Amino acid sequence: MNDAIREDGLPRTVTVVGVGLLGGSVALAARRGGARVVGVDRDAELLARARQRGVLDAATTSLREGAAAADLVVVCTPVDVIAEQVLAAASLCKAGAILTDVGSTKATIVAALRGRLPSGVAYLGSHPLAGSEKQGLEHARADLFEGRCVVVTPESDTSAGVVNSVVAFWSALGAETTILDPESHDRIVALTSHLPHLVSSALAGVLPADFVGLTATGFRDATRLAGGDPKLWGAIFEANTPFLLEALASFNSRLARFQEALHRGDRGAIEELLREGKAARDGLSPPFA
Amino acid sequence: MNDAIREDGLPRTVTVVGVGLLGGSVALAARRGGARVVGVDRDAELLARARQRGVLDAATTSLREGAAAADLVVVCTPVDVIAEQVLAAASLCKAGAILTDVGSTKATIVAALRGRLPSGVAYLGSHPLAGSEKQGLEHARADLFEGRCVVVTPESDTSAGVVNSVVAFWSALGAETTILDPESHDRIVALTSHLPHLVSSALAGVLPADFVGLTATGFRDATRLAGGDPKLWGAIFEANTPFLLEALASFNSRLARFQEALHRGDRGAIEELLREGKAARDGLSPPFA
Repeated sequence: MNDAIREDGLPRTVTVVGVGLLGGSVALAARRGGARVVGVDRDAELLARARQRGVLDAATTSLREGAAAADLVVVCTPVDVIAEQVLAAASLCKAGAILTDVGSTKATIVAALRGRLPSGVAYLGSHPLAGSEKQGLEHARADLFEGRCVVVTPESDTSAGVVNSVVAFWSALGAETTILDPESHDRIVALTSHLPHLVSSALAGVLPADFVGLTATGFRDATRLAGGDPKLWGAIFEANTPFLLEALASFNSRLARFQEALHRGDRGAIEELLREGKAARDGLSPPFA
Repeated sequence: MNDAIREDGLPRTVTVVGVGLLGGSVALAARRGGARVVGVDRDAELLARARQRGVLDAATTSLREGAAAADLVVVCTPVDVIAEQVLAAASLCKAGAILTDVGSTKATIVAALRGRLPSGVAYLGSHPLAGSEKQGLEHARADLFEGRCVVVTPESDTSAGVVNSVVAFWSALGAETTILDPESHDRIVALTSHLPHLVSSALAGVLPADFVGLTATGFRDATRLAGGDPKLWGAIFEANTPFLLEALASFNSRLARFQEALHRGDRGAIEELLREGKAARDGLSPPFA
């Protein structure tokens, strides 16, 4: 792929598979940077809207056509279909092409691909910590990745050249990249992303309809994530079940400490738990603009 | 108090006890409406800053002085000292004065005051569902209550005239009032406000320091409440322990349903739980501007 990478880190032709929030945003950002972007989606109407909005240079419902043109393929579909689509695209790519994805979990994808990719092409997983409970092309933005963390997850045998290319790609889109092995990535995001989603959903789920009038901004903030797409998140939870259960167990034991302190009326212990939570929360850097 | 109420619902003189975020905001809003506002706080420097900022018409560290001037006293101190301050102020007020507060729980305050107020004055609890994890006078705003819900919690023997006066006061500050008995109020806010705070704190509390770099807006939103003052919230949790434990039990059983569905790899059940959470979240009206 080396001669197909421009000096700014962007490949000449980027093919985006799945033109939703993330795929559309990758396309907008890569086009803004000067890459040619081909969009692949099974939904022809969506592709027409994307072309109309200036998201894509070319659009096709044919993975064959899209993959053949690509220096870099970015698979932006739900996490439970990424591996099969990477495999399908890989068999259609030209030699030297690189494939990546934007899935929220990495270990199951890497395991599904191990030893099955044709020679001459390479896969390296990515996970942009960007996104929203608002899905769909209409929310795509060229600046979605600016200043955001993108985790890149090489295996021990991934070549340095491939890592550099994928890192350069995300950097060209304005992101900060972090390199982690797939399992470490999955363990961490189980706690920083998947557990908050589960907790937010469970909190929303216990609200009786007649209490809605007495919710304020606190309840709304704490349950914002619950508005996400149940199918997408069901797939993420399934792909990351062991680490998510680990994170949930850790959360449960902290809830139990609150519960015990409340039961015995131990105000000091309650305040100590709240102080620890506040210290952790205050330790997060200020939210991005 | 009738001849001391102006046509717009504001008493002539409002005394605010405790000039923090809520007290300062009550003062700013009441002053903007044309009331004379006296601030009482044990912190003379805070009072000087409040005077300088135009939050108060008069300021005193003497509850006696502040209470004597008042048509309406609004006690804006932490929930565990409200009852004693209402009692102290009540004994110093002129006949016909009304006392209220802004505490997040109501039943323990009402119980502490029952049968102990001097004749000629009346107490009626209020709880504005406004506020922030940002405490202190510097965050006080004249528009903090605009469009927000304020719950007013009469007992069976509270006179209609007192209810009308307190409702008219909050309406003049731009709030929408809701009337509930103290226990119903406490049961509902245990779920809509105190449980989200506990959950947000517990979530922040399980984040290892070296995972901070992989948090995104989702984790930040879900833990925003955890930044609140541990002393204030410790007092609220203590005052509302039975209902908070009830809310926590309901939340725990929903978490257990997630856990079981994950354990048995039941994607359909997981998606159903997520769908129910999304439906509840989507059922909240859009957040206030």
